[in-house]
Amino acid sequence: MAFDAIETPFGKIDKIVGGAATYAAYAATNFVKPVQQISIVGYDFPKEEMAELKSRGVQLEGVEIVPDKKSFFWSGRYHEDMNSRDTLITDLNVLGDFNPKVPDSYQDAEFLMLGNLAPAVQISVIHQMKKRPMLIAMDTMNFWMEIAMEDLRKVLKEVDLLMVNDAEARQLTKQFSLVKAAKAILQMGPKFLVIKKGEHGALLFHGDEVFFAPALPLEEVFDPTGAGDTFAGGFMGHLAKTGDISFDNMKRGIIVGSAMASFCVEKFGPTRLKEITKNDIDKRIHQFKDLVSFEIELV
Amino acid sequence: MAFDAIETPFGKIDKIVGGAATYAAYAATNFVKPVQQISIVGYDFPKEEMAELKSRGVQLEGVEIVPDKKSFFWSGRYHEDMNSRDTLITDLNVLGDFNPKVPDSYQDAEFLMLGNLAPAVQISVIHQMKKRPMLIAMDTMNFWMEIAMEDLRKVLKEVDLLMVNDAEARQLTKQFSLVKAAKAILQMGPKFLVIKKGEHGALLFHGDEVFFAPALPLEEVFDPTGAGDTFAGGFMGHLAKTGDISFDNMKRGIIVGSAMASFCVEKFGPTRLKEITKNDIDKRIHQFKDLVSFEIELV
Repeated sequence: MAFDAIETPFGKIDKIVGGAATYAAYAATNFVKPVQQISIVGYDFPKEEMAELKSRGVQLEGVEIVPDKKSFFWSGRYHEDMNSRDTLITDLNVLGDFNPKVPDSYQDAEFLMLGNLAPAVQISVIHQMKKRPMLIAMDTMNFWMEIAMEDLRKVLKEVDLLMVNDAEARQLTKQFSLVKAAKAILQMGPKFLVIKKGEHGALLFHGDEVFFAPALPLEEVFDPTGAGDTFAGGFMGHLAKTGDISFDNMKRGIIVGSAMASFCVEKFGPTRLKEITKNDIDKRIHQFKDLVSFEIELV
Repeated sequence: MAFDAIETPFGKIDKIVGGAATYAAYAATNFVKPVQQISIVGYDFPKEEMAELKSRGVQLEGVEIVPDKKSFFWSGRYHEDMNSRDTLITDLNVLGDFNPKVPDSYQDAEFLMLGNLAPAVQISVIHQMKKRPMLIAMDTMNFWMEIAMEDLRKVLKEVDLLMVNDAEARQLTKQFSLVKAAKAILQMGPKFLVIKKGEHGALLFHGDEVFFAPALPLEEVFDPTGAGDTFAGGFMGHLAKTGDISFDNMKRGIIVGSAMASFCVEKFGPTRLKEITKNDIDKRIHQFKDLVSFEIELV
């Protein structure tokens, strides 16, 4: 949970609430409640945002508020090709000493999503769970592959699902082909792999099976910040709602996640996620169905 | 119809038969016969290739053989990212004076695909048709947008369907968003638009409708040369076979085209297209169905 400053070809905002856990929570609460949040913020994180999250079914007992430090701050600039961005500022602030504690009231969680943090921190959360959740999913990034690859290999062995983007899948495996990269990653621990390709959609791998969902073709991607975390929130929210971790249900999760991400990019930060209704989500899922559905007999 | 020299990260071949019309014909004859070919070759174009095409149902009356000139030759090199390539050599040879004549025996053609050539040449073919075909489709490229934009605008007014890649759609409209580019192109004449995105799939636009088909995730894209033309051949072949130019049937055409293209990239040039059977094609179309199919109820 953090603050971002964002510049895109369409506009600029100096300070808006962000952070993977914020996006994921706003997305997931459309499908399941409570969402049991674990994070850390500073004295400057808005009380109104906390109240808003709470009113949507986000439990905040696991969110540490540090009274004498600022919240994590990230500032970045997107180019016309919204798939690439430059990071301008990263102020760790409170995140520098983040040592997450899983509250007792969270111990029955069936679905655990580990955001992109140091692998050692991710492991500590897994080990704090007295009963193993039905599904443990994790995100990671190139930075940890460079400085903490050994720890990363350990977490990978303990999770069921890895969610990364195409560049990260390539870097993790030294394979350019995403199919080869997927095979290699499924040997490292996770039984399921989601590769996010931004505007080019997402792939789900499991054993020899593969599923693909496109991104919704949009007139304008206004701000892609948080789209991947929103996708993760929608995906995990759908799985948790249904309690079903079959490959077929994960396909549905990918579609739900893609639909949520397609809203996220329409306005700065999580703004759009706070506006949409169940009816908007239903309509968008229908659009995805129309986008890829075809009937065909054989040649 | 031409010769290519191709270098990819996986290998190198000094001379192999190529050319848009060759790929399109090999793909289309899996679905419809005859394919009435119009092209030009030199004295060096292999008689065996002509015989092979003929045996598969390609009529060659419209293929001019120039006795004292060489066939068109292209040489290129692909990078690891197979979406980009460098052209090393372009020897126009016979193509420099190509002035296609539509034979009388071709006059009843219901489906006309205009390959990527000077817009003035494309117009001349349309005007030689005494009865307008049910569907006229065309390809084009950035080069014609730069040197013959006025002619290109004229052809666009006379065709039903434009097939281009994403960069070409952007250049034609000066719109980065493919959705905006599609809207602009559908104002220029064509009622249907196919945007090919290589490994990222293809989009079909018509009015307010849009359909997306992914490329099949492959372990290796061995040689992408001709994939777009193979896609066009499969697409048009399916439409011609069914005689149905509805949006729903074009969706099927996109899937058929994508399946054919997924074979094309497996070996150098059109090699793989000559090996596959109807059974291979059926299996691959099933794979596409599995790749994107999901069942979902609403939230």
